[in-house]
Amino acid sequence: MSNGRVTIPTDKNFVEGTKKYIRLWGADAVRDCDGTQLPENARALAGKVYKTYFLARGNNEWAYAHDECLQNAALMSDRVLATADRLSIDPLAHYSAEQLALNEESVSFWQVYDRTTGQEIISWQFDTKTKRVEVENTVPMHEYTVNFFAKILWDATQIYNYKTNGWTITKDRDIDPVYPEAFALMERDLKAWLEENKDVNVVRFTTFFYHFFNIYDDKDRVKYFDWFGYPMSASPAMFRLFEQKFGYCITLEDLVDEGYYNNHFRVPRKAFLDYMELLEGFVAQCVRHFTDIVHSYKKEAMMFVGDNWIGAEIYGKHFAQMGLDAVVGSINSGATLRMVSDVTGVKYREVRLLPYFFPDTLRADAQCSKELLDSWVIERRALLRRPVERIGFGGYLSLADKFPSFTRAVAELCEEFRSIYEKIGGQQVYSQARVAVLNAWGQKRTWMPYMVLQDACYQHTTFYLGLLESLAGMDIDVEFISFDDVRKGNLAQYDVVINGGDADTAFSGGGAWLDAEVQEKVRSFVNEGGGFIGIGEPTAVLANGRFFQLADVLGVDEEKSLSMSRYKYNRDVCREHFILSDCEAAVDYNGGVQNVYALEGAAVLDERTEDRLGVDIGAFHVKLAVNTYGKGRAVYLAGFKHNAQNTRMLLRALLWAAGKENELHKAFSQNPVTECSYYPECGLYALVNNSAERVETVFCDINGKKSCISLQPYELKWIQA
Amino acid sequence: MSNGRVTIPTDKNFVEGTKKYIRLWGADAVRDCDGTQLPENARALAGKVYKTYFLARGNNEWAYAHDECLQNAALMSDRVLATADRLSIDPLAHYSAEQLALNEESVSFWQVYDRTTGQEIISWQFDTKTKRVEVENTVPMHEYTVNFFAKILWDATQIYNYKTNGWTITKDRDIDPVYPEAFALMERDLKAWLEENKDVNVVRFTTFFYHFFNIYDDKDRVKYFDWFGYPMSASPAMFRLFEQKFGYCITLEDLVDEGYYNNHFRVPRKAFLDYMELLEGFVAQCVRHFTDIVHSYKKEAMMFVGDNWIGAEIYGKHFAQMGLDAVVGSINSGATLRMVSDVTGVKYREVRLLPYFFPDTLRADAQCSKELLDSWVIERRALLRRPVERIGFGGYLSLADKFPSFTRAVAELCEEFRSIYEKIGGQQVYSQARVAVLNAWGQKRTWMPYMVLQDACYQHTTFYLGLLESLAGMDIDVEFISFDDVRKGNLAQYDVVINGGDADTAFSGGGAWLDAEVQEKVRSFVNEGGGFIGIGEPTAVLANGRFFQLADVLGVDEEKSLSMSRYKYNRDVCREHFILSDCEAAVDYNGGVQNVYALEGAAVLDERTEDRLGVDIGAFHVKLAVNTYGKGRAVYLAGFKHNAQNTRMLLRALLWAAGKENELHKAFSQNPVTECSYYPECGLYALVNNSAERVETVFCDINGKKSCISLQPYELKWIQA
Repeated sequence: MSNGRVTIPTDKNFVEGTKKYIRLWGADAVRDCDGTQLPENARALAGKVYKTYFLARGNNEWAYAHDECLQNAALMSDRVLATADRLSIDPLAHYSAEQLALNEESVSFWQVYDRTTGQEIISWQFDTKTKRVEVENTVPMHEYTVNFFAKILWDATQIYNYKTNGWTITKDRDIDPVYPEAFALMERDLKAWLEENKDVNVVRFTTFFYHFFNIYDDKDRVKYFDWFGYPMSASPAMFRLFEQKFGYCITLEDLVDEGYYNNHFRVPRKAFLDYMELLEGFVAQCVRHFTDIVHSYKKEAMMFVGDNWIGAEIYGKHFAQMGLDAVVGSINSGATLRMVSDVTGVKYREVRLLPYFFPDTLRADAQCSKELLDSWVIERRALLRRPVERIGFGGYLSLADKFPSFTRAVAELCEEFRSIYEKIGGQQVYSQARVAVLNAWGQKRTWMPYMVLQDACYQHTTFYLGLLESLAGMDIDVEFISFDDVRKGNLAQYDVVINGGDADTAFSGGGAWLDAEVQEKVRSFVNEGGGFIGIGEPTAVLANGRFFQLADVLGVDEEKSLSMSRYKYNRDVCREHFILSDCEAAVDYNGGVQNVYALEGAAVLDERTEDRLGVDIGAFHVKLAVNTYGKGRAVYLAGFKHNAQNTRMLLRALLWAAGKENELHKAFSQNPVTECSYYPECGLYALVNNSAERVETVFCDINGKKSCISLQPYELKWIQA
Repeated sequence: MSNGRVTIPTDKNFVEGTKKYIRLWGADAVRDCDGTQLPENARALAGKVYKTYFLARGNNEWAYAHDECLQNAALMSDRVLATADRLSIDPLAHYSAEQLALNEESVSFWQVYDRTTGQEIISWQFDTKTKRVEVENTVPMHEYTVNFFAKILWDATQIYNYKTNGWTITKDRDIDPVYPEAFALMERDLKAWLEENKDVNVVRFTTFFYHFFNIYDDKDRVKYFDWFGYPMSASPAMFRLFEQKFGYCITLEDLVDEGYYNNHFRVPRKAFLDYMELLEGFVAQCVRHFTDIVHSYKKEAMMFVGDNWIGAEIYGKHFAQMGLDAVVGSINSGATLRMVSDVTGVKYREVRLLPYFFPDTLRADAQCSKELLDSWVIERRALLRRPVERIGFGGYLSLADKFPSFTRAVAELCEEFRSIYEKIGGQQVYSQARVAVLNAWGQKRTWMPYMVLQDACYQHTTFYLGLLESLAGMDIDVEFISFDDVRKGNLAQYDVVINGGDADTAFSGGGAWLDAEVQEKVRSFVNEGGGFIGIGEPTAVLANGRFFQLADVLGVDEEKSLSMSRYKYNRDVCREHFILSDCEAAVDYNGGVQNVYALEGAAVLDERTEDRLGVDIGAFHVKLAVNTYGKGRAVYLAGFKHNAQNTRMLLRALLWAAGKENELHKAFSQNPVTECSYYPECGLYALVNNSAERVETVFCDINGKKSCISLQPYELKWIQA
């Protein structure tokens, strides 16, 4: 049995148990966890000892004494209807009074908007007695809002645990490194902590400074939750830095964004992108200061991808400057694994696997063993594309100890993980094609499009995320690019460009498609032989007679009830196509977009006639279509679901779009529930069975030579060339 | 037995049969029909003899000799991709060469557009040899189109019959009254015809000049079909009149409209509205000239609502000037009946009932009898609200003669129709509320929103049309108003305003909702106690933080994937509400809009949880919700289907929104398959059974006094107060 590469939770009340599982699972690192403490002498247990550290949170004595150094949030009030020519607005109405207080020193930054016209209003003042904004010269029947800074009185992550567990301890307050006194305090506290925690050799930052956007309402409910959101990083001081750096003023509206708060789905505008640039640079500079200190203590600095991670964009251009040794992320899928494993600029990457060892997730031995394996096979295919260096678990080890099958299954999983890393870690993996996923965020949000956070998705984005999930484990090189990359002429290096998402979102691109240069470059790429795959509402923005701006490339457009008088005749479905050759069952598009029709010349491969409402005129729900365009090809998918059949369909779609159909049977496993990865340097093939059944498959090596192979349930079989 | 008010088709080969049905059905008018001819001495058969007359069509000798007087169409070419800096476009590519020829004398009006940027391009010329437009300085990978005038070589209505029946006669060409020679010819021909057809005393104009937009492609298929479309009325001469009248130039793009051709669903812009005004005035002036001539021959002038009816808007402000005696329309529903019966400015209105006496519609005696009755009960409820003066049938009378049950059923229907008109014709009907349907067209398209044409609907609009259909026969006064009417402050006279349609269409209103004045007026109306009902995507346009601009009024908004980080908690459904009190079965919304969520304060009455995709975040499909707003109320419907239960639900929704719940049980019939109309002047109640079953109901008179009533299948029972 091998060992290493595995982190497990420990507890000062479970030291002997910890030793047992270090042995059984080959763990080489222990960590603390919410509700547990590291044992004395933890280093006697394992070579690596991780401990959670909060830079911005933890010194409540100081924080409560320095109100002026608390973090702020940029917020918008309710929309309030004017019924006369005066209006009084309580900015904090329906916000949590426990979490937020008005920052009354920041009133010069506040703004009042007439949301009926979209215009800013200047005839208002803040009444310091009533804590309300009094607006004059209002127009009756218009709605008004106040943009304001609120001081954050309570750490957003703590609120949940505190409320759930009925705690009565002091409420944590987060301080802001933008204030030199706060920054100095962070340094002092970190140094003291490093002195104190001699056993700890990995400082697990959770995370650095600014929390993702997570605001509560006046009924103790989450009001806003955007894992990617920046409003809780803003402050008057940060706004002043902005002006110094960019030479123009940023306003609260630039962050508040009509109440959308520049969430992950909004097409980002210049002022907000500049703000992100400022914040990322600021955070990186601060973090570097602290990682240097950590290193001076001969310890490693690890970033947890979550909680207060705002500004520390793991694919941002400032990331490498932070001097981190490692990142760790909690994952629940191949896409989230890749979000961690594709990170560069650190020495190693680690993922926290599911299930957590918590009472609500470990309920019965068979159940949790199955959950472990079901998650693992989903993540393993992504791991075979781009392995992380380490895996780990969280929760209460003593709880896991009660489930013998589960702990055995963990042991086997750890062994399999190490064998994977040992064989192919750091090696190039063979790719059948190189694919770019195009959206407004590009590389900065690699593997993150469409997500709520690292372990959930929205109903609206299930099929887009499904596509990413299939991609995460396919023999395809995947990069995430922005419209700026398109403008720079960077497309030629790719075989296929993918664009998709709901209309008017950052993911489909919205108004970016009205930039003629973007259209030119993408059309030209396809016209010259490139492939284009659209999913959902790709390139969609209503303009110039079309909804899908590249309808000509895609061969389809969406009927928005504006072109129904234009008859559509391309309605015959032909399922005989390279793309559908391995689909035995009907394709599940997870719903998907409706009302898409084919242009003349495109080939409809699938349509949902049964969704028509008994009226023929204007009824068409194309689900899958292909088109040729110049020397190139395009594929349209109205929706998608991640499953074995669809993953195979997508692989075929990518190869067809790339004009590489002949590459399919190289380093390939015929049965769709199986997949094959190939590592040319060592000549190894990894053949995986993603199903819980024993299966047969025909394996094709890199030269197309075939052989029949049997695979046990979930088996990973290595084949030497 | 009574007689009169009924028009039947006749045939010179079926004179004795005609006499029989004149007697049996009490008909007082005969008409010719496609493929039949009036008998000699038709006036001996009936007091009224109708004959079809075409003003613009019929004198092919002259039309073929006067190419310069043919009608034109304003068209756009294909979108053609530039691959270099020059591009050659065939404007007529993919158009029917039999229907259209380039109007080469009109080149000075033509335009070339870069459809990738939306900009007009001036570097082009028309090559008279190749008949192509040569564009210079094109940008590769941009698409270009040519806007041009084409001469119409073949009457659009004739094309279908001609192709279907394999005719070989001369193809009819339509001449344009904008040319004085053509106008003079029309006058000469009409006078000659009037002299010739002494027996005829009703001239049935089919219709006047300009055909609705109906263009064929190069494969003999319909390319565009918009029953409301104006592109086939345009010409260089008309454009010159436009400049004279309005003092600015109209361009082809004003009609071509990015290829949407200002179809019925497009929010109309100023230049196009001006164009309609010009055309309606021009058509009315010309028509008046011809109706005066008809009257000078002591004959009546009747307009058929269809075919070449463009410019003769039956609810337009020029309509009454035309001097028409009557309108006749083919109907298939209550809404289409009301479209005819609500017309003012004529002496009488007539509708053509289904089924036509054609071999494909009269197949078996039981089948056609059933179709007759099924249509009749749908139309009868509308007739009881606003009766037409006459009904009629079309097709081959000799064919109907083969079906004895059918001809008996027609006899009973005619008798019932006459009894209705006799009892309540011209009388005020009691209304429980006054309702305005608000859209960009307003009164001009009374009862016409969402329609393809008078006998079909689009899949996209089935639920909107369903709502109109329910309204058409309800005890509610219905008017159609425009945003201009709102601006003029005309809302106070209504109890409820209804707005709905797909986003960005003329029916929901699109950008009209960005006019703050419109929002103010509608909000104020509701705030003061008015009712507002939204269906589908009411008030929808993405701006200022919202999709439904009156989300505050409606209490709901649609999630467009931009506000998913804003949590929505108002998800509890409570079906206990006045509106749903008569709904025993689940409500059928015919699909309807998805992703609608309730704002705080609104009450969700129905939601489609089962449409969620297994992901809870961002999943909500509110189907019915109500909200209070100031002193007023709003109801939101995600979709609708015309059926008895929903009609009752809608009636309740209207009364609830109007704050008139107490009015429900006045002049009311409890069983939802029955309805009651009340005529205060004569003190009569008309109680109808809309079902094919014998039913019991509780009838409430105008004072709320109840009595139990039995109704036979389809029965209409009169009750004297």
